[in-house]
Amino acid sequence: MLRSHSAGTLRAAHDGEQVTLAGWVGRRRDHGGVAFLDLRDASGVVQVVVRDELLESSGAHALRSEFVVQVTGAVRLRPVGNENPALPTGDIEVVAEALTVLNEAAPLPFPIEAAGEQVNPPGEEVRLRHRYLDLRRPAPAAALRLRSEANRVARDVLLADGFTEVETPTLTRSTPEGARDFLVPARLAPGSWYALPQSPQLFKQLLMVAGIEKYFQIARCYRDEDFRADRQPEFTQLDVEMAFVEQDDVIALAEKVLVGLWSLIGYTLDTPIPRMTYRDAMARYGSDKPDLRFGVELVDCTSYFAETPFRVFQAPYVGAVVMPGGASQPRKQLDAWQEFAKQRGHRGLAYVLLGEDGELSGPVAKNLSETERAGLATKVGAVPGDCIFFAAGAASGARSLLGATRLEIGKRCGLIDESQWAFVWVVDAPLFEPAEAAVAAGDVAVGAGKWTAVHHAFTSPKPEHLDTFDATPEAPGEALAYAYDIVCNGNEIGGGSIRIHRRDVQERVFSVMGISPEDAQEKFGFLLDAFGYGAPPHGGIAFGWDRIVALLTRSDSIREVIAFPKSGGGYDPLTAAPAPITPAQRAEAGIDGPPKKPEAPKP
Amino acid sequence: MLRSHSAGTLRAAHDGEQVTLAGWVGRRRDHGGVAFLDLRDASGVVQVVVRDELLESSGAHALRSEFVVQVTGAVRLRPVGNENPALPTGDIEVVAEALTVLNEAAPLPFPIEAAGEQVNPPGEEVRLRHRYLDLRRPAPAAALRLRSEANRVARDVLLADGFTEVETPTLTRSTPEGARDFLVPARLAPGSWYALPQSPQLFKQLLMVAGIEKYFQIARCYRDEDFRADRQPEFTQLDVEMAFVEQDDVIALAEKVLVGLWSLIGYTLDTPIPRMTYRDAMARYGSDKPDLRFGVELVDCTSYFAETPFRVFQAPYVGAVVMPGGASQPRKQLDAWQEFAKQRGHRGLAYVLLGEDGELSGPVAKNLSETERAGLATKVGAVPGDCIFFAAGAASGARSLLGATRLEIGKRCGLIDESQWAFVWVVDAPLFEPAEAAVAAGDVAVGAGKWTAVHHAFTSPKPEHLDTFDATPEAPGEALAYAYDIVCNGNEIGGGSIRIHRRDVQERVFSVMGISPEDAQEKFGFLLDAFGYGAPPHGGIAFGWDRIVALLTRSDSIREVIAFPKSGGGYDPLTAAPAPITPAQRAEAGIDGPPKKPEAPKP
Repeated sequence: MLRSHSAGTLRAAHDGEQVTLAGWVGRRRDHGGVAFLDLRDASGVVQVVVRDELLESSGAHALRSEFVVQVTGAVRLRPVGNENPALPTGDIEVVAEALTVLNEAAPLPFPIEAAGEQVNPPGEEVRLRHRYLDLRRPAPAAALRLRSEANRVARDVLLADGFTEVETPTLTRSTPEGARDFLVPARLAPGSWYALPQSPQLFKQLLMVAGIEKYFQIARCYRDEDFRADRQPEFTQLDVEMAFVEQDDVIALAEKVLVGLWSLIGYTLDTPIPRMTYRDAMARYGSDKPDLRFGVELVDCTSYFAETPFRVFQAPYVGAVVMPGGASQPRKQLDAWQEFAKQRGHRGLAYVLLGEDGELSGPVAKNLSETERAGLATKVGAVPGDCIFFAAGAASGARSLLGATRLEIGKRCGLIDESQWAFVWVVDAPLFEPAEAAVAAGDVAVGAGKWTAVHHAFTSPKPEHLDTFDATPEAPGEALAYAYDIVCNGNEIGGGSIRIHRRDVQERVFSVMGISPEDAQEKFGFLLDAFGYGAPPHGGIAFGWDRIVALLTRSDSIREVIAFPKSGGGYDPLTAAPAPITPAQRAEAGIDGPPKKPEAPKP
Repeated sequence: MLRSHSAGTLRAAHDGEQVTLAGWVGRRRDHGGVAFLDLRDASGVVQVVVRDELLESSGAHALRSEFVVQVTGAVRLRPVGNENPALPTGDIEVVAEALTVLNEAAPLPFPIEAAGEQVNPPGEEVRLRHRYLDLRRPAPAAALRLRSEANRVARDVLLADGFTEVETPTLTRSTPEGARDFLVPARLAPGSWYALPQSPQLFKQLLMVAGIEKYFQIARCYRDEDFRADRQPEFTQLDVEMAFVEQDDVIALAEKVLVGLWSLIGYTLDTPIPRMTYRDAMARYGSDKPDLRFGVELVDCTSYFAETPFRVFQAPYVGAVVMPGGASQPRKQLDAWQEFAKQRGHRGLAYVLLGEDGELSGPVAKNLSETERAGLATKVGAVPGDCIFFAAGAASGARSLLGATRLEIGKRCGLIDESQWAFVWVVDAPLFEPAEAAVAAGDVAVGAGKWTAVHHAFTSPKPEHLDTFDATPEAPGEALAYAYDIVCNGNEIGGGSIRIHRRDVQERVFSVMGISPEDAQEKFGFLLDAFGYGAPPHGGIAFGWDRIVALLTRSDSIREVIAFPKSGGGYDPLTAAPAPITPAQRAEAGIDGPPKKPEAPKP
């Protein structure tokens, strides 16, 4: 080792000890023939005192920030009054007797602040291009270290519970799961391609068929999406699957993992975590991932306006959400709400202002009947000074707008207690949704049918829907999935389901999704075959690992908790990947091999 | 849970207890109105007694091997004399009161033996195609579980030592490391491609620049090779990197990991593990990964034959290796040795037979001088009845042939104690080798120079060669690498080095390898730039995880310890990957995007 001690571990008890340290030069203060250096390593910072003569004789006169040095010297107590209580090593300093510059540093593109120091962080593009410097900053470094701890805690919980960690392949076959696959040309089988897995879903199910019974993996997954905000082309999930279980078993196990994770930041997560049906979540919060850190629930006003003279409210669904104190918003702000709605694909956001005197105003108010006006505040729970927003139309679209409005109200009105952790399981989601809805939401509909799976094609219907989910053309829309999503502060941080384990049920689900028996056999034949050889009932869950660590570290973006993230469009500012390849690489890689009919290449 | 107990955990102490079990039906024996079932789950096997009437009434009359069942009943002691001491649950049985068939099983492509049962395993192709059945067999299941334990042990050692686990990207930039990259088209930047990493090498070095100081990862790596025996296109390494270290520090840490791993199979690995120089390994064993479980060392006879009249031995190097008892080999076998040499690219394998009477025979003997004949047995350490093999020519090629011959002798003569574990560090390898040698060995020479790196381009020269490795055109051939490989029973199971951390040294190494400054900047600019901002001295190691687990489980192939391995040519018999893609997928994936000049795409 180039050091005898870690800088951050030195204390008054080391007084008089001879030490060798190695690390980076932080701040340097010159003062009367000596320089005071903050010497930083992974363990912390210590003050080093260097005489000017030593700097000269070691050729270290030009010592700047982020030079890498090795220092040998004695630990001594700082002179009385010079202690720094903010620093764990603040009682002592090291008086250098020898100093070696191990490497130099060019002037930095941005300064690296000391722990506890407040600076404006540099822009993300420059940070990511120099991520190796960004990670020297206290917050990003701490985030990576917490991520490592999160891995440890999760594995400890699972291994103690008898789980086996298994690595599944990443050069595999395209398995439609609602997004595009990344593809990899197979040089040895020109014209054939591997796909990078969107998740280990099929392999973990095969492991259940194999009798592994309890599987987990911290797995890299790949989705070739259009990189909506805060998505990464490669991401990580804690992937879990168990045989012979029911929903409650998976939920109980998942809660043990979550308790362990949140204990890392000193938070005691109470279990069992409350559950809410998908139906309730949509009705009360307009979202399948409700943020329960604040109230402001949606109010269903459909029957209240059953007789309304107002044409807009003569709709299958009318709902409202109240903005506390919103009546005093300036006109400009009320216009901004219309823009807010339009950006979400709606025509606008109807509102009624409830004056401090109890009078209703705004363009909608005058269209309502006297009775409707009189009872409105009571109906929606508004008090004088509030603004009442409305959405009317098909329930799903209107609720979605109200849900977004609710979140915006929460933010604008400061209703969200940022120190709080609000967990909820959302259960009993629909098994299928109309394919056109999935496509509209930017997903890839699997199969050519009218229906596509809300979770994925391998999710079991709830037991009571097992016989009937395909009984009539409309039945798929009624069936509930045996699925559960875990939501924290409005983020879906995990989701899972009890899976189909019977070949006949799986074939019926494929059929509802418009996947022909031939297609099913070609794409999923190995899974269907496996189900024919004694597949046990099984289920599991996958946690969004990047998101969970981002929450634990209170990071705004998952990019903060990924060592080397991609920026927009999947571009890596550090290595400049992706990049063009040479014609020779292309020729060799089998990219332009003869197109083949879909049949297995010879091994 | 569909069970109250795990089958394999039941003991006499459970006598009288009501239990619910779930698992697979193993053997079934029908006997006088009752059926005896071996019920198997992940924990083991228990005997279940089912009355025929219950089988009938549960619709389980046709209960066959590998049906999945749930059984409720009482545990009872087996009748005296019927205990099965070979089974942990052999004192008891469960008398079924209720039985539910959870899933049926078609007749199997191969039988699944019980633990302890000896059967001929099915062929590998059929096993891999039904890997979910193969993994129900005791040995493959145990191998996967041991692999999980190996992960745990390694992480425990490293985390206890202050390491941080960091995930590095797998959609990244091509980083030439001696093999071909797998490529991934970037849909959002048509014509540009990601590469799957051959190792996390550059990223872990950047993490050192970032001040992480102690990094590890169990990392998936990718090499698009021609799948020589027992290679996989994707494989796993335990990847470790440390800052401010020297060779001894990395070796000491690595030994802690190895001690932990071998303790899993009850073996106490003595440390420190012996070290051997590369030069010695080649001279004595003709291999950079010597199998030290047996002797039979190479004997350098160059000076012995300095005056030889035999033309073939008038060579820069003549070496010998002795096959004990080999003089009695039939002519056919001696011919087979010639074939053995030819398959390795040599003209043949010279030999001298030392008769029981001490007489030399064979075609070479008569070409030797009287003096040479007289002293030969003593020189090479042969005794009457032995065969002496010779190779002559350039030292490297001749030694390589003798090394292979030595291994074959060890196998044929039963000299290898299969229960032994022989570890050795091979150190002080050359830094560079002639590029033509690398190409001949099937590697991709990086750069256009006469020299290429033996380990990789980021390996530091040993300190004493740092100033001189490029001093003359021949100097690169003399320089030693600051590198170390760990060898177990003749397998290289890990390797590492102290890395270059100075930009100027890295540029000089690139230059020796014929990588132009422009090329270096284009491909490795981010690394060179990083070295300019205070890179610490650092080094690390990577363990071949598949190989290590294969050794621990005494498996013949790494395929045995991979959940879903590829067979020859990178083909997956289970999913039939790789597979053709549709024209629509191809069009969308950006595969045929406009070729671009090598410059960074816009983020």
